[in-house]
Amino acid sequence: MFESAELGQTVDKTTWARRVPGLRTALLDAQADVREAGTFPVIVLIGGVDGAGKGETVNLLNGWLDPRHVVTHAMGAAKDEIVRGMPHMWRFWHALPPKGKVGILFGSWYSSPIVDRVYGKIKKGGLQRSIDEILRFEKMLTDDGACVVKLWFHLSKKAQRARLGALEKDRDTRWRVTATDWKHFGMYDEFRSVSEEVLRQTSTGDAPWTVIEGTDARYRGLSAGTALRDAMRKRLAVGAKHARRAAKAGPADLSASVPGKRVIHELDLSPTMKSKKKYDDELEHLQGKLSLLSRHASFARRSVIVAFEGSDAAGKGGAIRRITSALDARLYEVVPIAAPTAEERAFPYLWRFWRHIPRRGHVTIFDRSWYGRVLVERVEKLCEPAAWGRAYQEICDFEDQLVAHGAIVAKFWLAISQDEQLARFREREKLGFKRYKITAEDWRNRASWDEYEVAASDMVDRTSTERAPWTLVPANDKEFARIKILRTLCDRIEAAL
Amino acid sequence: MFESAELGQTVDKTTWARRVPGLRTALLDAQADVREAGTFPVIVLIGGVDGAGKGETVNLLNGWLDPRHVVTHAMGAAKDEIVRGMPHMWRFWHALPPKGKVGILFGSWYSSPIVDRVYGKIKKGGLQRSIDEILRFEKMLTDDGACVVKLWFHLSKKAQRARLGALEKDRDTRWRVTATDWKHFGMYDEFRSVSEEVLRQTSTGDAPWTVIEGTDARYRGLSAGTALRDAMRKRLAVGAKHARRAAKAGPADLSASVPGKRVIHELDLSPTMKSKKKYDDELEHLQGKLSLLSRHASFARRSVIVAFEGSDAAGKGGAIRRITSALDARLYEVVPIAAPTAEERAFPYLWRFWRHIPRRGHVTIFDRSWYGRVLVERVEKLCEPAAWGRAYQEICDFEDQLVAHGAIVAKFWLAISQDEQLARFREREKLGFKRYKITAEDWRNRASWDEYEVAASDMVDRTSTERAPWTLVPANDKEFARIKILRTLCDRIEAAL
Repeated sequence: MFESAELGQTVDKTTWARRVPGLRTALLDAQADVREAGTFPVIVLIGGVDGAGKGETVNLLNGWLDPRHVVTHAMGAAKDEIVRGMPHMWRFWHALPPKGKVGILFGSWYSSPIVDRVYGKIKKGGLQRSIDEILRFEKMLTDDGACVVKLWFHLSKKAQRARLGALEKDRDTRWRVTATDWKHFGMYDEFRSVSEEVLRQTSTGDAPWTVIEGTDARYRGLSAGTALRDAMRKRLAVGAKHARRAAKAGPADLSASVPGKRVIHELDLSPTMKSKKKYDDELEHLQGKLSLLSRHASFARRSVIVAFEGSDAAGKGGAIRRITSALDARLYEVVPIAAPTAEERAFPYLWRFWRHIPRRGHVTIFDRSWYGRVLVERVEKLCEPAAWGRAYQEICDFEDQLVAHGAIVAKFWLAISQDEQLARFREREKLGFKRYKITAEDWRNRASWDEYEVAASDMVDRTSTERAPWTLVPANDKEFARIKILRTLCDRIEAAL
Repeated sequence: MFESAELGQTVDKTTWARRVPGLRTALLDAQADVREAGTFPVIVLIGGVDGAGKGETVNLLNGWLDPRHVVTHAMGAAKDEIVRGMPHMWRFWHALPPKGKVGILFGSWYSSPIVDRVYGKIKKGGLQRSIDEILRFEKMLTDDGACVVKLWFHLSKKAQRARLGALEKDRDTRWRVTATDWKHFGMYDEFRSVSEEVLRQTSTGDAPWTVIEGTDARYRGLSAGTALRDAMRKRLAVGAKHARRAAKAGPADLSASVPGKRVIHELDLSPTMKSKKKYDDELEHLQGKLSLLSRHASFARRSVIVAFEGSDAAGKGGAIRRITSALDARLYEVVPIAAPTAEERAFPYLWRFWRHIPRRGHVTIFDRSWYGRVLVERVEKLCEPAAWGRAYQEICDFEDQLVAHGAIVAKFWLAISQDEQLARFREREKLGFKRYKITAEDWRNRASWDEYEVAASDMVDRTSTERAPWTLVPANDKEFARIKILRTLCDRIEAAL
């Protein structure tokens, strides 16, 4: 991997002076085209050996590009206090540039796995899991259209020793050489070996690595600028092609979509609560239990994420209220999910849900959720079949990351019959409260009942995992549904604490 | 202030049972109307004595309202790591609910001033400054249409002692009584006296306090719910009236708007850089100086906020680039300001600028800024005259808060002549680079040259303060402008460190 980057590559002053003006113009033009297209972000990852000129190159690129449309993030170790209490991937989602912009990520999601493996904090298997996670994350980004440019700055062992020494000798740059740099130099061979493994596995067709020798500043800068220009141009060229391909590609094969029994359709909706007294007793008991659980000492190290889906008028609001009234108002947030805003559309689909992920000790309840992608967006044809076809895997990855961080993920599908929905619509219209207004959309959704049932059944089949299972809730009897939801939630939390 | 709240107010079970259902319906209906109107937020501030049932009341209100459209923030002491390095008011801006929603702020901007005064951390004058700041902040909110509901929960000294004792005796509530609660009880008289002073001064016509006796849970809950319902109803009723009043009210008196000399027009645009050599030397010297200043040990405790305004093609982009290329890319962000997005419009005008305020040790450069309110929005009539008339004061308050936090605020107006602008437009059209595209808007703005000049002169007259002065930059000669900007910035930072 690193052979060509240890040959002592240099660029002389004349070549530099001759080539830089053209490169700058080309970069500015490509950047303007990316902005005008507005359909994808450019994500530049900067990695490599200490002292190989990563910082200088980032500053150089920033100087060459239009700084108003570049965002740079330093993403070294996850020490920043802001990210404490948040899942591992949260800060990377937070740092993604919107469509039309260039984001330079200094460090990126590659830092921790490599450093942790070299320090022996994770084993081979752990590194492999990280690599797989990165591959799926980057696939999500490129599937969504992102132009991902990965630059790795390399130095031979000899060159690194010389470089650190030179930086240290100069009064102006001495501050930049830290004890960690020398410590890492002592581990050069391990770093080289782990990095090579990671780069080899993550250099994919859609997001390849460019390895650049870091010894000579002119060679390094010219190589980085050229790589960025070429990647932007290439992505701009396939712009139209990409869109066509995405439109043509069908969804992944969905075995549950073949005619046959559907898990949602087969659900027995007859269970009821028997008596009002029984409901009141159980409600009080379970709310008290939930309240106690949320004050449990171990709760501060976990978080709870609840997603509610179901037909209109299935009773999501009422069920949510029975949960929240058992919790301290400072600990939870209820997030109603509607169509994404323009700002949210400028990011990959899951971005807007990452914004609301609770920190440790907190609860977020989603009234409708990220499953909209494979429900309403699928049925109403609001996104390409390829996009919702991909979403099952992306969603499972998302939930895996939450669970890995200690989150308890509970997902409830509230199922009612068509007759029950009609009765509730009629009743609401009669009540006339504005908060219960039945909209044209509600009636339209009702007309697509069968398609929603197919979509919901596929969803359950493909995303009900052991770590984040779906709970199907017969909800023709509201009280039965509320008790079942509260009990499931208490059980899940109790088992986790 | 507290007399009626020490009378031992109670509500019996029967009254409670009779009145609660109607109150809940009324609250839900008012909340639905607020959401449907979508023109203002409801901001509920919760303050008062420890043990007076603040937490219970917040939970009660959350249970009565539709939790999907309520956001609750606990804003006690500013210890939360997220806010470290950010100005005092940042977290409150962050916690404001958008239009159409209810936000419950537990603690709010009243906590610190009261506690700090009782503990003797600030003197009388400091408290008065905080009160004045709060008054201006709340005026900004209500001028913008917000429904601000301020609830203060009070206990007599005797009642507080009894309450803390009772909480401590119960096994389930013991955890809630902290050593601080008892310490504060020992300072009851001081707390009462300072709170009374603060409440008296901040109980305004548009945002009055409601003081509620906290001893009896039913009385407390019913009073809080009723106050919230009444405030929402009152605000909904004046909805149309408010809009009419805002439209009719003219801007504050602007002495600079009377015919006469205008500071922008009088500016001598003739200065030039003399020679290319002189420019190159000065540029290198000043960029080197800026680079050193940004690495100065004291810089980590300050932040730098630079705002650029000026006619189209005045050279803002080029000047910004000369600053950024002297800085480490990890330390700065360039924020280009365009028309606000739908999400941003749901908040008070300055909200979107607070989002980009740098933390300590960082630099944010705004390419156009919050001054758009009194420039383009005024000239193009994009907001009510009353709104831009108010903005001068709001902007001065905003910048004062930044400076008080240690920010260095530098504001540059780049001035070119009409002839020079025309020449630059023509040149850009000839170049044909997409990044320099001249739009219809540019030509239209040019046609309003005089009006922009009046607006810019008013702006300088009304917002150039000692703490955050405007620098008027003759920019017919780009190189002269860049050097003047770099030198001013270096001088400002040097003086501050």
